[in-house]
Order: sequence, then structure tokens, then C-alpha cells
Amino acid sequence: MHPSQGLRSSPIAGVVLNGGDVDAIAGLLTLRERQVLTVYAAEPVMAVLRDNPIFDVLARDVVSREVLPLDVRTPLLLPDRRPSGLFVEIFAVPGKVPLYLEADDAPPIVLDGHTVGIAIDDGAAPLFFIPGCAAMTAALRARLRGAALVFFDGTLWHDREMIEAGIGGKTGRRMGHLSLSGPEGTLASFEGLDVRRKILIHINNSNPVLLADSAQRAAVEAAGWEVAFDGMDITS
Amino acid sequence: MHPSQGLRSSPIAGVVLNGGDVDAIAGLLTLRERQVLTVYAAEPVMAVLRDNPIFDVLARDVVSREVLPLDVRTPLLLPDRRPSGLFVEIFAVPGKVPLYLEADDAPPIVLDGHTVGIAIDDGAAPLFFIPGCAAMTAALRARLRGAALVFFDGTLWHDREMIEAGIGGKTGRRMGHLSLSGPEGTLASFEGLDVRRKILIHINNSNPVLLADSAQRAAVEAAGWEVAFDGMDITS
Repeated sequence: MHPSQGLRSSPIAGVVLNGGDVDAIAGLLTLRERQVLTVYAAEPVMAVLRDNPIFDVLARDVVSREVLPLDVRTPLLLPDRRPSGLFVEIFAVPGKVPLYLEADDAPPIVLDGHTVGIAIDDGAAPLFFIPGCAAMTAALRARLRGAALVFFDGTLWHDREMIEAGIGGKTGRRMGHLSLSGPEGTLASFEGLDVRRKILIHINNSNPVLLADSAQRAAVEAAGWEVAFDGMDITS
Repeated sequence: MHPSQGLRSSPIAGVVLNGGDVDAIAGLLTLRERQVLTVYAAEPVMAVLRDNPIFDVLARDVVSREVLPLDVRTPLLLPDRRPSGLFVEIFAVPGKVPLYLEADDAPPIVLDGHTVGIAIDDGAAPLFFIPGCAAMTAALRARLRGAALVFFDGTLWHDREMIEAGIGGKTGRRMGHLSLSGPEGTLASFEGLDVRRKILIHINNSNPVLLADSAQRAAVEAAGWEVAFDGMDITS
């Protein structure tokens, strides 16, 4: 992207965090250190930023931090603090604490704001961004029903895939991710929800849906899903 | 790089840190989380890792942390803890605390191990890796005299270049970097040191030595320096 103004600005006016794991927050360290922007997050994730002084590289007098309450639609602001016309609402989804904060070998799946889904809207129907979700719930199904666009956790095809491939010792569930296949998997969970466009994101490199000619790719496409790719461009 | 063994290994057996700033340590967050390796650093930099729990993503039972004393030649180990045949020695160079730990507007230049130079050898003459250095000292000149290879801080051409370009409010000195030009600059400081090969690294995007046809590029090359580039390959 090109600077929208000045020699070094970026067009990024704000960042909404969905969790405190490295893949969700380490990108903050590569943003410009003294450009006005706002970081939005639930309180447990904001606590992670506070507890890691390295994130103070985003200068506190320039980069605002705003705690988002769960389940409240909140206006996203432009750098000059005027409303952007976009709104965000975050909501807890089943997940676990970040990997580096795990205190034991089997951290419980919690629903407390450590992991959230994000709804963004401009006054019309929202889009949903949910890169990590450990289980489908009745509340989440109700929220997603009839949605125009959902980006959803596509980490694994099946729960024991990393163990069987010999590349890890954890199930998907242990890592805080619902798998795509199976009677309680993502494909089954979205049946009947009437979501207009569904895109898999956060796909682990063990997941056969990444292969264009796999049976699993054919299965997700038959169920109406798209597989995200680098450089993907979404136009409403 | 390809795995040297297994499906997911990397050939990285160890990491030696030269400071605690984001550009020196954030890369740790992109390493494999459960691959045996050793992180080596001076105590002030190891304290930074301890004070930021996000670095615990490198599992403590798998990734060793070894505090390097200053001015002591220490063997670098293979993942199985056998000697690698390489040795490292770190030594304090003038610098400042990391940006995100600055307590006031004019942090002092210190010589306490927050910023170090790194010497690596295999029993023959060492190479030196010094991406940040706020001033040349007599001790550093003595250490570098006659060296076979030095990678050195090439951040700015002159001290006020970012201010004059309108892209920042700080001098090079304020950021903890010696500039290339001027009577006390890097080019002048290396005169008579008889270093066989000298390569500029850590070059800011405001520095005209990056332009192949600039007078400043011609000046550094006339003084016997090379300008590093992405993908550069060094063969002894």
C-alpha cells in the first residue's frame, strides 16, 4: 500500500484484535511506531499487551488503546477521532488462553473474551471474522444465521491430522480449533445457516483443503465454502 | 531453507541477540515453537525476554536461554549440546536502551550490554557483526584492527538526515547510531584499521548509499565498503 499522506504514513487507521496469540498480535510490532491509529481489543487481550512492554514501541501518546466491551456495537474512529462510518462488535467464542500463557498440559476451553469473533458493518449487514473457534454454540449459530459474509477458522480438516502426519502432538481441539470434518465439525455446523458467502481462513499447512485437487477441497467447495489465498480481494 | 531432518525442522541451531530492540528480537516469534535451539544474549537483553511473556512461546523445556558474559569467548552448541566448532564473543558497544523502554526524551548513551557487538569464529580470525553502534571507541578500534570481515551499522549517511527529509524528529545519535559521514563518522573511524572486508548493514531507507548511482554510494565504495542487499551470500 502507498502512503495516503506524507512520506511515511500507512492507510491503517485502526487494528481490531481477535485474541492474544502470537499470530494475532505480533504484527503490531511491524506497524509504524509514531503513526496515529487505534488498537481495539477485549480486556483479556489488552491485558496481554500491557503485560508485554515490547508493545509500548507503539508510542502511547500516538497509538490509542481502546478496550471493546463484548456484545456492544461500537463506532470505529478515523485518526482524527471522527467516526469512520464503520462499526465493530466483538463477541466471545470458545477458545483457550494464548499458548505462551498456558499453565498446564490441558488448558480448558473458555468463553471469556480471550478469543473473540469480530462483526464489522457499515450500517448494512455485518461481515464476520472468526479465525479461531473451538466449538460451535447455539448462540454463535444464531448470530451467523443469514450473514452476508463469514471468514471462519479452517485450521484442520480433522482433529488428529497433525498427530497422524507426525508433525505435532496436539489435536485441533487441544489447540482451540474446531475441525472442518465430522458430525460436529465446521461444515456440518454451518448447514442450514443460510450464510451467503463463507471463506476459510487460518488454514494450517497440514490441511488437505489447501491442495486444489484434493477430495477435501472438493468437499468444502461442494458445501459452499471458498478457501482463502494470499492476495485474495473481496468486493461486496 | 529446507528441513535438515523431519517434516518441520529448520537448520537454525541457535540465535545470538545483539540488543533488545524490536528489530533484534521480534524474529524470535516466528521461529518454530518446539524445535531444539539455544538463544544467547547478554543479561540486559535476556531480561527483556523475561519481562515479555510472549517470548515464552519458544517453549522453555525445548529452547534454552544462555546468558553470555561480556568479553568471554564461548562455544556455540549444536541441538544435541555437542560443540558446533563455532565460538562467539559479545562485547558492549555504545548504545541506548530499547525504544519501548526509554524513560525520558533523551536517554543516555550507555556501554553496559544493552547493545553489543558479536564476534564469531571457527578457530581462525573472527567476523564481527555490529548492526547498532552509537560511537567509535578506542577499545572497539583495537578489537576491529586487522579483522577479516566486519558487518557494521550503516543506518544513516548523516546525523540529521531524517529530520531534513521530514520523516522523523530524531538525529542518528539520538537513535543510538553513529552516522557514516563526518569527521567522527564511520568512514573516518575505520581509516587505518586495515579491515579486509567491510559491509554496511542495518541501513535506513533514508540513506542515499542505497542508491546505486549516488555520490554517497561512490564515497563508501571508494573507502572500501560494500552495501549489503537482500539475499547477499558471503563466502570466505
